[in-house]
Amino acid sequence: MARRRMIYEGKAKILYEGPEPDTLIQYFKDDATAFNAQKHAVIEGKGVLNNRLSEHFMSGLNAIGVPTHFIRRLNMREQLVRMVEIIPLEVVVRNFAAGSMAKRLGIDEGTALPRPIIEFYLKDDALGDPLVTEEHVIAFGWASQQDVDDMVALALRVNDFVSGVMYGVGIRLVDFKIEIGRVFEGDFQRLIVADEISPDSCRLWDIETNQKLDKDVFRHDIGSLTDAYTEVATRLGVMPRNGNKVSGPKLVQ
Amino acid sequence: MARRRMIYEGKAKILYEGPEPDTLIQYFKDDATAFNAQKHAVIEGKGVLNNRLSEHFMSGLNAIGVPTHFIRRLNMREQLVRMVEIIPLEVVVRNFAAGSMAKRLGIDEGTALPRPIIEFYLKDDALGDPLVTEEHVIAFGWASQQDVDDMVALALRVNDFVSGVMYGVGIRLVDFKIEIGRVFEGDFQRLIVADEISPDSCRLWDIETNQKLDKDVFRHDIGSLTDAYTEVATRLGVMPRNGNKVSGPKLVQ
Ligand SMILES: Nc1ncnc2c1ncn2[C@@H]1O[C@H](COP(=O)(O)OP(=O)(O)OP(=O)(O)O)[C@@H](O)[C@H]1O
Ligand SMILES: Nc1ncnc2c1ncn2[C@@H]1O[C@H](COP(=O)(O)OP(=O)(O)OP(=O)(O)O)[C@@H](O)[C@H]1O
Ligand SMILES: [Mg+2]
Ligand SMILES: [Mg+2]
Repeated sequence: MARRRMIYEGKAKILYEGPEPDTLIQYFKDDATAFNAQKHAVIEGKGVLNNRLSEHFMSGLNAIGVPTHFIRRLNMREQLVRMVEIIPLEVVVRNFAAGSMAKRLGIDEGTALPRPIIEFYLKDDALGDPLVTEEHVIAFGWASQQDVDDMVALALRVNDFVSGVMYGVGIRLVDFKIEIGRVFEGDFQRLIVADEISPDSCRLWDIETNQKLDKDVFRHDIGSLTDAYTEVATRLGVMPRNGNKVSGPKLVQ
Repeated sequence: MARRRMIYEGKAKILYEGPEPDTLIQYFKDDATAFNAQKHAVIEGKGVLNNRLSEHFMSGLNAIGVPTHFIRRLNMREQLVRMVEIIPLEVVVRNFAAGSMAKRLGIDEGTALPRPIIEFYLKDDALGDPLVTEEHVIAFGWASQQDVDDMVALALRVNDFVSGVMYGVGIRLVDFKIEIGRVFEGDFQRLIVADEISPDSCRLWDIETNQKLDKDVFRHDIGSLTDAYTEVATRLGVMPRNGNKVSGPKLVQ
């Protein structure tokens, strides 16, 4: 393991060279960041939870024919994925107004949107990941018109599927962000869902109580992040409800 | 004149009821505002210049078959226009990066864009006229998909025409903003260019020297705004070069 070549260390994950060509190993760290990395903490167990949850959603998407980078989970913190050429956009789908959109457009947080709204944000930390329009995307060559159409189609299918999965366990999928990448297959190329799908990249509210079960718990200091993510994971049957805790105080001798 | 009913007083113009149904009189004030009205000044002669310049562009557009609200100029400060139902969006066309887009996307001011980029901003002073995407426009019903397509087509034609007019007098049309409104004709409705086209709503740079000849002169205090607008008007033959000045110190007895 120690000989593996590290390809990239991000804020929440590390990418290593995979065992076969065009594969990568994605390692989920315990680091949490918010507000363009101005806020940072290490939250023991988060990486384990997100590795499991991302596996859960990506496997389900693969099964319904929405292509993702996920191949298989390797261990508690790592999964094997297909290497993609990431399109430098965060693709956001919103079902209810929240976060930056509620603020920018003066809509009360929690308002149901008339239909799912898809937004693109340029992946550029130095610029604070600004909202961009299709016009910008195409004019600057970040993606082609065909890519945009494909990304919209993928994003809407992910929205329908993950909304359904969440609905089944009494959770509302308020919004989420995915990253999409390009893979080459012989003479063809196509777009697949990459990065992660987890409570780090979704807004999840309990349908009954509106309790937040996502990274907003960390952003706004409203409780324990691992408790929230564990709640999601146990409802989904990904972690046993009374099984070993993934986090908690270490027993220091 | 004193009996005319005022319909709306904006930051730069006043609308009065027109002499015939579905017409309005647009009165051009001397007020200049910037940065969402945080900066304000009265610049003697600006209204006269903009009344003339907007007449010049709108007449030219009418003549090439791009429909506008302009009917005829009434006097130094007023023009007769068709009343429209304004679509609550500022439609911006950019040929070169400048202003908010250069800043948001980290592009050097003056960089030629790979193609004209069209943006929509929600007309909402309280929210600071935020950038919105087609997704927002359609989901919130600010305009239909057909309206968006028609607005894009109108905006591109205005861009080609006004770029040409400016090019002819050694001025680069860097970007501009228009407003578009709906008119009803029997059972049909269509979109026409409304509001104004003037150095208040365009960025205009001298092709040779890059000298700014638009409202940025006021925004960034880099000279006399009436000198800049007069330069544009005289180059276009709208004002005689050595004719009566529209502005200047009043001869107070
Ligand atoms: N299948 C994949 N192939 C190649 N790169 C991927 C794949 N999936 C995710 N990535 C990239 O791996 C990185 C994951 O790391 P992490 O999420 O920690 O990054 P980050 O700190 O959010 O920074 P950024 O996303 O801005 O690079 C991201 O850059 C993501 O775009
Ligand atoms: N043909 C038209 N019919 C109806 N309204 C028009 C027409 N042309 C322009 N308008 C509207 O008239 C007003 C012009 O006033 P002005 O440009 O001073 O407004 P403003 O202070 O910029 O404020 P705002 O544009 O936010 O209303 C604008 O509200 C504009 O939308
Ligand atoms: Mg990331
Ligand atoms: Mg105005």
